[in-house]
Amino acid sequence: MKGFASDNYAGVHPEVLAAIAEANVDHAVAYGEDPWTARAEGLLRDHFGPSARSWLVFNGTGANVLAFRALCRPWQAVICADTAHVNVDEGGAPEFIGGTKLLTVPTPDGKLTPGMVDLHLTRVGDEHAVQPRVVSVTQSTELGTRYEPGELRELADHAHAHDLLLHVDGSRLANAAAGLGVSLRETSTDVGVDALSFGGTKNGLLGGEALVLLSDGIGEGATYLRKQTLQLASKGRFLAAQFVALLEGDLWRSSAEHANSMAARLATAVAEVPGVTLTQRVQANAVFALVPPGVADRLREDVRFYTWDETTGEVRWMCSWDTTEDEVDAFADRIAQACGAAVAAG
Amino acid sequence: MKGFASDNYAGVHPEVLAAIAEANVDHAVAYGEDPWTARAEGLLRDHFGPSARSWLVFNGTGANVLAFRALCRPWQAVICADTAHVNVDEGGAPEFIGGTKLLTVPTPDGKLTPGMVDLHLTRVGDEHAVQPRVVSVTQSTELGTRYEPGELRELADHAHAHDLLLHVDGSRLANAAAGLGVSLRETSTDVGVDALSFGGTKNGLLGGEALVLLSDGIGEGATYLRKQTLQLASKGRFLAAQFVALLEGDLWRSSAEHANSMAARLATAVAEVPGVTLTQRVQANAVFALVPPGVADRLREDVRFYTWDETTGEVRWMCSWDTTEDEVDAFADRIAQACGAAVAAG
Amino acid sequence: MKGFASDNYAGVHPEVLAAIAEANVDHAVAYGEDPWTARAEGLLRDHFGPSARSWLVFNGTGANVLAFRALCRPWQAVICADTAHVNVDEGGAPEFIGGTKLLTVPTPDGKLTPGMVDLHLTRVGDEHAVQPRVVSVTQSTELGTRYEPGELRELADHAHAHDLLLHVDGSRLANAAAGLGVSLRETSTDVGVDALSFGGTKNGLLGGEALVLLSDGIGEGATYLRKQTLQLASKGRFLAAQFVALLEGDLWRSSAEHANSMAARLATAVAEVPGVTLTQRVQANAVFALVPPGVADRLREDVRFYTWDETTGEVRWMCSWDTTEDEVDAFADRIAQACGAAVAAG
Amino acid sequence: MKGFASDNYAGVHPEVLAAIAEANVDHAVAYGEDPWTARAEGLLRDHFGPSARSWLVFNGTGANVLAFRALCRPWQAVICADTAHVNVDEGGAPEFIGGTKLLTVPTPDGKLTPGMVDLHLTRVGDEHAVQPRVVSVTQSTELGTRYEPGELRELADHAHAHDLLLHVDGSRLANAAAGLGVSLRETSTDVGVDALSFGGTKNGLLGGEALVLLSDGIGEGATYLRKQTLQLASKGRFLAAQFVALLEGDLWRSSAEHANSMAARLATAVAEVPGVTLTQRVQANAVFALVPPGVADRLREDVRFYTWDETTGEVRWMCSWDTTEDEVDAFADRIAQACGAAVAAG
Repeated sequence: MKGFASDNYAGVHPEVLAAIAEANVDHAVAYGEDPWTARAEGLLRDHFGPSARSWLVFNGTGANVLAFRALCRPWQAVICADTAHVNVDEGGAPEFIGGTKLLTVPTPDGKLTPGMVDLHLTRVGDEHAVQPRVVSVTQSTELGTRYEPGELRELADHAHAHDLLLHVDGSRLANAAAGLGVSLRETSTDVGVDALSFGGTKNGLLGGEALVLLSDGIGEGATYLRKQTLQLASKGRFLAAQFVALLEGDLWRSSAEHANSMAARLATAVAEVPGVTLTQRVQANAVFALVPPGVADRLREDVRFYTWDETTGEVRWMCSWDTTEDEVDAFADRIAQACGAAVAAG
Repeated sequence: MKGFASDNYAGVHPEVLAAIAEANVDHAVAYGEDPWTARAEGLLRDHFGPSARSWLVFNGTGANVLAFRALCRPWQAVICADTAHVNVDEGGAPEFIGGTKLLTVPTPDGKLTPGMVDLHLTRVGDEHAVQPRVVSVTQSTELGTRYEPGELRELADHAHAHDLLLHVDGSRLANAAAGLGVSLRETSTDVGVDALSFGGTKNGLLGGEALVLLSDGIGEGATYLRKQTLQLASKGRFLAAQFVALLEGDLWRSSAEHANSMAARLATAVAEVPGVTLTQRVQANAVFALVPPGVADRLREDVRFYTWDETTGEVRWMCSWDTTEDEVDAFADRIAQACGAAVAAG
Repeated sequence: MKGFASDNYAGVHPEVLAAIAEANVDHAVAYGEDPWTARAEGLLRDHFGPSARSWLVFNGTGANVLAFRALCRPWQAVICADTAHVNVDEGGAPEFIGGTKLLTVPTPDGKLTPGMVDLHLTRVGDEHAVQPRVVSVTQSTELGTRYEPGELRELADHAHAHDLLLHVDGSRLANAAAGLGVSLRETSTDVGVDALSFGGTKNGLLGGEALVLLSDGIGEGATYLRKQTLQLASKGRFLAAQFVALLEGDLWRSSAEHANSMAARLATAVAEVPGVTLTQRVQANAVFALVPPGVADRLREDVRFYTWDETTGEVRWMCSWDTTEDEVDAFADRIAQACGAAVAAG
Repeated sequence: MKGFASDNYAGVHPEVLAAIAEANVDHAVAYGEDPWTARAEGLLRDHFGPSARSWLVFNGTGANVLAFRALCRPWQAVICADTAHVNVDEGGAPEFIGGTKLLTVPTPDGKLTPGMVDLHLTRVGDEHAVQPRVVSVTQSTELGTRYEPGELRELADHAHAHDLLLHVDGSRLANAAAGLGVSLRETSTDVGVDALSFGGTKNGLLGGEALVLLSDGIGEGATYLRKQTLQLASKGRFLAAQFVALLEGDLWRSSAEHANSMAARLATAVAEVPGVTLTQRVQANAVFALVPPGVADRLREDVRFYTWDETTGEVRWMCSWDTTEDEVDAFADRIAQACGAAVAAG
């Protein structure tokens, strides 16, 4: 049984692995000057619009730090939710490697609003304070929720009205788009997003993300910065071939849709279980819940998953492209049993 | 015809690709807590000795910058040859990302000597100057030469006598060991090397390098630093599986030996060609040469390779694990023809 | 009339200026190797205890950033109040220059408690998160409040129990000590403080602060770091002479006491004025208050001071070593008049 | 006897100290929003031309690092002589704090030429290499030599032709201008210099330097960067008042001229002494010389000065605004005696 710990625990989608093998012929120019990279960049333009300029990178932290370095000057800062991956899970890389101060806001559901952004706009022009330049949101969020296109549009308009840029940490953008039933550009370019960390790894790649700049006139020096930020792959074709597999058909959507539907299935199955409280709306591939004391540890004897919040005991159950219905159903059964036992004992 | 541009132009060795595919089963804990990573780390201990602690990373620049961050405090510096990859080909990453000043020395052949190190040891204890902490050498060097074990030992002893550490940029350590006919540890651990960037990509991996610390008591925080330096892979098993393929048999040696022998074959074939002057000893998988004016550009109409030094016109011909004898012979023929024509015309 | 904007608006105390003039004889070794620096360092040991090691610097931001660089490795972080000067008024220097992530906590009065510290101790040992190393408090705080010695002791004990260090941003430490009626060491060394940014500028110096390390075994490389952090004065004697003037008699205390008493006088005078609400306890040289709408702007036509919180209109009235009783009384009268008019109109 | 160690060993010129005392009246807005700063900035415009924008800072390293941060993006680099203060005497601050890679060139006399600049212009547009953006020269140089206006013009034209900026580390610009008999702008603005670290400390200030940007359209964010680079003085009026004293009359020139003439007097006095070899032209306030073995140490028993090059024993004798003719003559006598004894003994 695969567990519900992380979509990073899943392997490589067979089509992606096949694409890597197919790219393994002959010599190819290194450092991204190869035909596969050109194709991947073309596909990213197909998906995000003709203005999309992209730089393939190794991982999500790399994409985000590169984004901030490309968008911010040293005195400029990024506004984000305090639960943002960049704030809590990147080992201080935005600050140490990017030099970027993060201006954080608490949120109930991982989602920023224009009003939250305003909290950090009180000192524009004051040399003693960092100057906000980027609003960074995660789509879908670290809490399994997602922005409606209209919500992103509102944030983008608000950002632009204050001379800010809207960046999306899209390590799970595919899950959001699939959940919304829209194209990738309808939840990015079309609603005013300026820059995007586009994720592949969590959606079935061996490993690969992309910085995608959607607006013109931003990101000077991004090519140099990718190299300096340690994100330029030698044999770039193998990074690119993965994106080709993901994007030239509908693999990106079918994989994300599947992960989402497994999360929905799990949420539905446990929603009415006595003792289980779903703590966030299930809008992507994660289920957040409170369970009776002791239940999480008991479940973890057999199935791996993480406690999200040590203080409340809130757990996170994450589904991936390869989670099966049987696994969901079996896990839901175990949850029901464990909760039942706990409720009975309690 | 594959060309002689770079060992990074070569693809993935079939055994390595097979190992990736074999690792693609089930779920595995992310971020290096998987069995393949444990195995790769064990193999690195087998090769480099029981004290070897390793951190797998994405690329060579990542390994080197991580090494400097792990070995140096902010006021400490790295002594290296002015031709070192860290100095000329890493986009300023050592300085901007690592904060590390490089104290460079010109060399005739890419190799440091104890006397060259001394040039930068004149201001120990002076707060106005950075304090040398690391001597970094490349093995085999960027100029296709290599250090004899005794030369490394001498450098290590000298470094240690001055409270310095010896770091080896070993992106082609396999080529050096294969050329010397020694084990990996005989050209590293056994001669006093403290820290190593161990390369895999140029020797047939899809992409993967490792920081390997050989001495005890150094590298505090390396695990945190790898993450912060953007070098922690999500699906770490696929990085690790490549190293398993490379190191559990003798693939590392056979691939490197082949590349070396192709370079030797090319050097032998062109050494006596009128107009060709070999400019460095051919001790690994590269041939450096001067050719008559115009010859390089003419050859490049058909075969890709780089001019190393724009001012002198010196060229670099690089062989890789997949270069064939036929390709070498055909290229040598073309060189002879082009030089012959040039000499006749000149 | 001098205004109540900032203790940085005040000039140099005449005794300090005289000390500078007295030091202006002959040549003296540069960069702190002069007798005045030795004397200042000796006086800092007299005040903070024999273990105190000090590095004179130019300004408060310099002292704080140097402190963080000396106490933290790159993967380590600083816990502080979200109102801390280091978080809101240092232009991102802790992050960009120091590479230090700040882990902030909201507080009602600018003061941290052990419980607040705990909020950031949940991920010790997790490579994805920065590792807390320093608890930084401001004494007296940015909100004019101060820690009792017992409160600092409790924080220090808590910090040490978790392998953390306690740093005090003491740009107004003299005001706190004077207000508490204790010596400088009784509110620092004696209660377990490990490191201190000791302020002079706000207490009558032309310009000068000091990093003071109170605990042994911390701060490796601080001498190199001061230079690298751009805080090593060429003609160090003139920085040191100011500290000699401040510390060899009781100038530090008399100046701070005076500023404190002026703030107390102002607070007393306006406390009962209809329309005025004091928003913080007045424990140092600042008065925080809410006044009726329009009053602040009307007062500012004649007397300079700052609005602290644009959203609530809360104002800050700051007294300094040279504020006079007449100025306080005249300002209190104006406040009363303006509030009276506003209340009558309202 | 004052010694010949450094112009930083000298004190504050009495007129400068008087100006500080005069500025010590009443309250003044902090952080450079005071009338003295406005006056200093106006005087800098008077001297360097109406386009000159200036930011006062604490010290020379601060001015240089701020300059590089203001002129370079993270992927851009600075070309300088290997003897440049920024390369050898700033504790790695340009690299660690500024993130700036320095591309160095050996020179015989501390002076760059266009041909030397060209050595680092071979990889424009190559993402693997830092991109040169600034040529930084020191005027007068660390070796006591100076650029003729025509030499600077040639460097500026060369720089501009390659889309580079010319920065002058002018910690002793006054000595150069005085020696050349030209105005400050004739050796900066008028010959195409784009940016300047203008020194005051070595020329009689208590402590103060300025970043001066001479060309339009460069230095975005310099105000924020000064704060972030820890160089914004709280009580800015006292920094500014010093520059007012230096620049509103001809104090800058008379002090520099005096120091220069003392160096010339010393050089003349020892030039013919057997055993003494002057190693650089004496064009500012420093004399570089070789003396017989043992002589330097013997002289240093009574008079302080530095050995410049430990390998050759070359010494530096530095004069300052307060060096007297008697001191020069007495020192020259001692040199002659010590050399005479050494030659006789040898």
